[in-house]
Amino acid sequence: MQSLVFTAAVERLIDLALEEDIGSGDITTNYLVDPEARSRGAIVAKEPLVVAGLAMVRRVFQRLDPEVIFTPHFKDGDSVAVGAEVLAIEGRLAALLTGERTALNFLQRLSGIATHVRAYMGLLGDSRVRLVDTRKTTPGWRVLEKYAVRVGGAGNHRMGLFDAVLIKDNHIAACGGITAAVARTRSQVSHLTKIEVEAATQDEVREALAAGADVIMLDNMDAAAIRQATQYIAGRALVEVSGNVTAANLQTLAAAGVDLISSGALTHSARAVDLSMRIASIP
Amino acid sequence: MQSLVFTAAVERLIDLALEEDIGSGDITTNYLVDPEARSRGAIVAKEPLVVAGLAMVRRVFQRLDPEVIFTPHFKDGDSVAVGAEVLAIEGRLAALLTGERTALNFLQRLSGIATHVRAYMGLLGDSRVRLVDTRKTTPGWRVLEKYAVRVGGAGNHRMGLFDAVLIKDNHIAACGGITAAVARTRSQVSHLTKIEVEAATQDEVREALAAGADVIMLDNMDAAAIRQATQYIAGRALVEVSGNVTAANLQTLAAAGVDLISSGALTHSARAVDLSMRIASIP
Amino acid sequence: MQSLVFTAAVERLIDLALEEDIGSGDITTNYLVDPEARSRGAIVAKEPLVVAGLAMVRRVFQRLDPEVIFTPHFKDGDSVAVGAEVLAIEGRLAALLTGERTALNFLQRLSGIATHVRAYMGLLGDSRVRLVDTRKTTPGWRVLEKYAVRVGGAGNHRMGLFDAVLIKDNHIAACGGITAAVARTRSQVSHLTKIEVEAATQDEVREALAAGADVIMLDNMDAAAIRQATQYIAGRALVEVSGNVTAANLQTLAAAGVDLISSGALTHSARAVDLSMRIASIP
Amino acid sequence: MQSLVFTAAVERLIDLALEEDIGSGDITTNYLVDPEARSRGAIVAKEPLVVAGLAMVRRVFQRLDPEVIFTPHFKDGDSVAVGAEVLAIEGRLAALLTGERTALNFLQRLSGIATHVRAYMGLLGDSRVRLVDTRKTTPGWRVLEKYAVRVGGAGNHRMGLFDAVLIKDNHIAACGGITAAVARTRSQVSHLTKIEVEAATQDEVREALAAGADVIMLDNMDAAAIRQATQYIAGRALVEVSGNVTAANLQTLAAAGVDLISSGALTHSARAVDLSMRIASIP
Amino acid sequence: MQSLVFTAAVERLIDLALEEDIGSGDITTNYLVDPEARSRGAIVAKEPLVVAGLAMVRRVFQRLDPEVIFTPHFKDGDSVAVGAEVLAIEGRLAALLTGERTALNFLQRLSGIATHVRAYMGLLGDSRVRLVDTRKTTPGWRVLEKYAVRVGGAGNHRMGLFDAVLIKDNHIAACGGITAAVARTRSQVSHLTKIEVEAATQDEVREALAAGADVIMLDNMDAAAIRQATQYIAGRALVEVSGNVTAANLQTLAAAGVDLISSGALTHSARAVDLSMRIASIP
Amino acid sequence: MQSLVFTAAVERLIDLALEEDIGSGDITTNYLVDPEARSRGAIVAKEPLVVAGLAMVRRVFQRLDPEVIFTPHFKDGDSVAVGAEVLAIEGRLAALLTGERTALNFLQRLSGIATHVRAYMGLLGDSRVRLVDTRKTTPGWRVLEKYAVRVGGAGNHRMGLFDAVLIKDNHIAACGGITAAVARTRSQVSHLTKIEVEAATQDEVREALAAGADVIMLDNMDAAAIRQATQYIAGRALVEVSGNVTAANLQTLAAAGVDLISSGALTHSARAVDLSMRIASIP
Repeated sequence: MQSLVFTAAVERLIDLALEEDIGSGDITTNYLVDPEARSRGAIVAKEPLVVAGLAMVRRVFQRLDPEVIFTPHFKDGDSVAVGAEVLAIEGRLAALLTGERTALNFLQRLSGIATHVRAYMGLLGDSRVRLVDTRKTTPGWRVLEKYAVRVGGAGNHRMGLFDAVLIKDNHIAACGGITAAVARTRSQVSHLTKIEVEAATQDEVREALAAGADVIMLDNMDAAAIRQATQYIAGRALVEVSGNVTAANLQTLAAAGVDLISSGALTHSARAVDLSMRIASIP
Repeated sequence: MQSLVFTAAVERLIDLALEEDIGSGDITTNYLVDPEARSRGAIVAKEPLVVAGLAMVRRVFQRLDPEVIFTPHFKDGDSVAVGAEVLAIEGRLAALLTGERTALNFLQRLSGIATHVRAYMGLLGDSRVRLVDTRKTTPGWRVLEKYAVRVGGAGNHRMGLFDAVLIKDNHIAACGGITAAVARTRSQVSHLTKIEVEAATQDEVREALAAGADVIMLDNMDAAAIRQATQYIAGRALVEVSGNVTAANLQTLAAAGVDLISSGALTHSARAVDLSMRIASIP
Repeated sequence: MQSLVFTAAVERLIDLALEEDIGSGDITTNYLVDPEARSRGAIVAKEPLVVAGLAMVRRVFQRLDPEVIFTPHFKDGDSVAVGAEVLAIEGRLAALLTGERTALNFLQRLSGIATHVRAYMGLLGDSRVRLVDTRKTTPGWRVLEKYAVRVGGAGNHRMGLFDAVLIKDNHIAACGGITAAVARTRSQVSHLTKIEVEAATQDEVREALAAGADVIMLDNMDAAAIRQATQYIAGRALVEVSGNVTAANLQTLAAAGVDLISSGALTHSARAVDLSMRIASIP
Repeated sequence: MQSLVFTAAVERLIDLALEEDIGSGDITTNYLVDPEARSRGAIVAKEPLVVAGLAMVRRVFQRLDPEVIFTPHFKDGDSVAVGAEVLAIEGRLAALLTGERTALNFLQRLSGIATHVRAYMGLLGDSRVRLVDTRKTTPGWRVLEKYAVRVGGAGNHRMGLFDAVLIKDNHIAACGGITAAVARTRSQVSHLTKIEVEAATQDEVREALAAGADVIMLDNMDAAAIRQATQYIAGRALVEVSGNVTAANLQTLAAAGVDLISSGALTHSARAVDLSMRIASIP
Repeated sequence: MQSLVFTAAVERLIDLALEEDIGSGDITTNYLVDPEARSRGAIVAKEPLVVAGLAMVRRVFQRLDPEVIFTPHFKDGDSVAVGAEVLAIEGRLAALLTGERTALNFLQRLSGIATHVRAYMGLLGDSRVRLVDTRKTTPGWRVLEKYAVRVGGAGNHRMGLFDAVLIKDNHIAACGGITAAVARTRSQVSHLTKIEVEAATQDEVREALAAGADVIMLDNMDAAAIRQATQYIAGRALVEVSGNVTAANLQTLAAAGVDLISSGALTHSARAVDLSMRIASIP
Repeated sequence: MQSLVFTAAVERLIDLALEEDIGSGDITTNYLVDPEARSRGAIVAKEPLVVAGLAMVRRVFQRLDPEVIFTPHFKDGDSVAVGAEVLAIEGRLAALLTGERTALNFLQRLSGIATHVRAYMGLLGDSRVRLVDTRKTTPGWRVLEKYAVRVGGAGNHRMGLFDAVLIKDNHIAACGGITAAVARTRSQVSHLTKIEVEAATQDEVREALAAGADVIMLDNMDAAAIRQATQYIAGRALVEVSGNVTAANLQTLAAAGVDLISSGALTHSARAVDLSMRIASIP
């Protein structure tokens, strides 16, 4: 039931994208294409992929031609074979030509993330661990990239600095210890806000748990230390491991009994997948 | 002498990035850190890289603390060894903690592109061919990513739809042939605007040249066809090849005698490089 | 350590406030006051109050004169006696005259909320119940009014629709019951997001608890039903009562053993307190 | 014939209101409600009130669902009995749930002002005096609150600093007396701009009148002084009294023969009236 | 004492002006000029002129270099001889080069209006009639052009549709006559808002005066009719004539005894005066 | 096939124009005109003119009434006789009255430029020289005025600082000569960017040509010097003359054999043409 939500931030990113490309005008199209001519475009997968962000394509073209007719042949999360037509779009030819690159740039990046995440999910098999993203997203793309992560099958960490407390070493140093830090935030934040604490040693794990952390992030621990901490916590808080997650060590981490594995690479290093647009010959 | 220019679009992207991360407030920092406390942070390379976007780090932190003191130890384009401190930043601790992730997200991506491009440039050696980017940039990042490409040593294709004419197959179909398309745009655009034409066959190459194209883009031609076209054109127009450029075929393309090789992967598929921020212990 | 944070939304509200008042120019001041003349203003309490929003005064005047010198004599949360000078502000006389009304309008409303909340907190005495606000805030003022509530001594409910899940009757109807609704959201939201469920009957309380709700909001229950529900839940989830909270019934509700009492009137019906600005005679 | 006008400032306030509430997304609704499901909501009065701002409800929901069908059962200025359905709204269920709180927050505040003003108008009976508002409005809400005041039956003072001259003590001090201040502004402002002067003594009243003030505001005078000033002016300028207007002294002030009574409390201290939204059970 | 006020609208116009010129970057300057190099520019009059808008020059350059040092040699309203240096500006050379054209474009147009108005004022000599502008200003430039008109010595008509009532033939037709129209607006607008009525015949003049119009605009009347109307009104309302004002008929109109002559040509058809910028040779 | 393109900058200018005129509301129309009443307006030429900017009229009215029906009787570039109805517009009467002045202000200025340019083109007859505009446009109007120039029949110089390189004396001084300046920019700008160099002497002409300038601008040369430079260049670069272009010397310049004559007066000193709006009597 989940759908891509056009928050104000998403709309502003689309504005920015169209303005940086169109600037003072698409001079090629403006001088060569009859503004009233209509046509039909189709976006085609040039490699196998998991599609994400179909609604972005519609939104981009609607900015240039509010009457555009959008016909998706898949829905976000579907696997698409090479050569398949992902969607069709009909409208003013000038709008199709002017918006083509921006629409593809959005779709290629979001589908790239979903495809990459889906591959990682395959490695996890039916493990009960939850793979989640981080705040290492492309600046300006937070809501979109976190959506693509969910489309790929993984989960989201907090959305930003505003929707959960994550107490790191510098916060701890700034206010005199884990116990004080948790107590102070708990007394001030909403009863609906969870508190996560970063712990680098077994002592810190114990202090965080005693202080009432909802989630404990194990920072830079080796597999043995992770196992020890997880056994100590024993379900009294959620356990997250973060950092240096690779295809190679994902299963090992999952086997250590943690609840959550977070990975920045899900968003910051996924490559774009290849999609292109065909525009029907003009009658 | 080239420097990163803070155009209105860049400022809007920074706004967007900070707003999506901070939202209604960095609740961890707001409740734990004395707003007057000061500290010093340092950004460190976790892998060898070519740095790009140093001024973005300053700008991000200046938004949160206009009095921040920024001390870069390198300049954009420098190669940085693993472990090296790239820059230092002093100011309000709360600003350092709130801005850290956004600043790093910008620097990691731009340095990732510069590093990737530099590697490609190494493959080209002292070839006279020019490697250039495309419009396949991350939406919202056009000016920044094209800057990072130049930092890495490659060149830029047009900035957007507004600063050069690029006549593709659909434009040609829409107005009755290459000759007509070039004539019509030439008569209307500024005398300072160049016209590039996409050509898929030797016939189209000949027609584009006769029509007076400044640049001819060879579309999807094999090496023999590229060589034939290049010899025919013989310097009367610039010759560009585009598409499917890989580390493997870069040298072959360069040897075909073309003037320009364009590659979308320079921007859309570079992975972020790893940089982290250390914040000095608080006195 | 908590301070008023100038989020992007707060800045936009200040923009709006100054633009709606100044419009095409403060014609009285522009024609009568030497743009270089300087003066000193003081804001004075005309009734006893709890002050909140001092930093807004500085920010408003800084927009009109970046060199303004702001000298607060109290800090947010302090009780101020009638007649006391709350703060002084020095700068260009024209800026003081043009900004006076907007600065006071912000301070009067935020201090009004803090004063009102402080009075309610006095009624609660040392009860362990937490009084919290709601989303019934003045449109455009969410971050500011929730800040004033904390200054007054009460707590915050969620900031908006984005930072916690609150499943109400219509959501439950839309997806087939409490159990399904909690399960579906739990599987999709971040592990750092809490889930609150509204329950109108003891059956719904039991279902919500079994489904794993973090917080249960008792909707429109009488005192006996509240007590019954609270005893059943027995600390396995937080219990909130909402609606029709008045000075008269606050202590009764607190005695029922609930964890949280939420009240929209804290923000939507607090009257402004009286503050005025004196501007020193011009030399 | 008067209607609520959606000026650019009103649109920006609606933007701000929706963005502060929705932020990165309404996670409850997004995960639980089918984006295509439709429903019907009704807003109901929970106490007797004078309704104001109906068009704001439509505008808020149109932002979330442009196809929403809005059916008001009353018009602005109507008295509504407790329990009456004020309006109905049909559209996407997700839009109704996401927009409900923002729409109600606008309607409750504007109707609160209209209801409060209407009560004051009742006290004035058929007096020829005009009760008017001030610039003590909620920052960001100027146009809306002044509209609600008119809906309640009172009049508006100037809209802001731009549409009339109001010369106060500090302006007078800054340019050497009332006579000079009026002359200087008269020579520079448009012939369509009126000039009001604040007078604290009978001497100042006489000087203001001689200088040609269109309106004279009697500042902090007792009833006898007000009467004396009014008799002296004798219709040669409009007379306004301001400050400390209460239900108790309103009739006394009206009887003093002044033309205008201004009161900041009309806008800054009206409490919100109680309205709620029912959403039809989902088929 | 009057100065150019940087309202939000003026700032937005400066943004627009710089963005349309700089776009994705001043490529000439970025590639050729050391970003740290400093220089000194001077703006010089190439023809005799009345200068207006000096502060705009400072503001434009401050956007590009906040540390710029601005030294005006004249003040707005001064007559400047050909060849005189109007102002000097020191700062980063790149900022001077990038901002030069935009700064000059503002100064040339505003000074052009002031110069044109000053010439008209000379024709009026010591007539008591007031020459005023209209709403026929360059879209986006209202506040600036009305300022330049005052600098030139003429007065302003209303600023826009919001600060005075001007009832024209279509408004009269829409509500059943002048008497009804004046009564309806008088009962609703602020007591500080004046009402002007357009009258095309002597009957309409009489009706407007009886209805209580503050100002009567004589529409398209010949000199005799103007004289007749003015004598009838006899100071009971201000009298304005509008339309077809030229250097040739200005004195005749003034002699007819009216209070105000309005002319759109003051703003919409003034030509820019010639000013240029010299940049000192670089050390 | 060329049409007026509503870039983001054009939309922002329309916003600015409507906001500066409407501000807090069109009080005359709001209080006198039934918001549901409909009418028909017609814009009529009051002098012979070349029309430009018809689509701006539609866009302005659409902002105020999205359902407006726009019926142009001419197309941009057509010559319109005095008295002819240029277009009709039907919609809500209140929208017609509120938008009238802004719509006319746009149309009058753009048509004024097109009319002025067309007259200059007539002087050139069938000369092969191209008359082009400059960057001396009204700040905020760049895209629109350059469009009007094309409608009038002349060509455009570069759009701004971003789409071509124009090396002037100060740039040359800053980097050590024409040869160095051209080489440095050529190595960094896109292969699609042309380079123009300003030359004041025959030596500079020779150096610019040898350096590979695409266009050479002859700065302040007399007719003999222009002829000498043009003969030397002999088609190896385009030749532009700029400055002091008048109706008197246009033909002489054209006869000197240059390719381009640029003139700032085309945009900065065209007067508005006279157009007015008639609104049908209301039923």
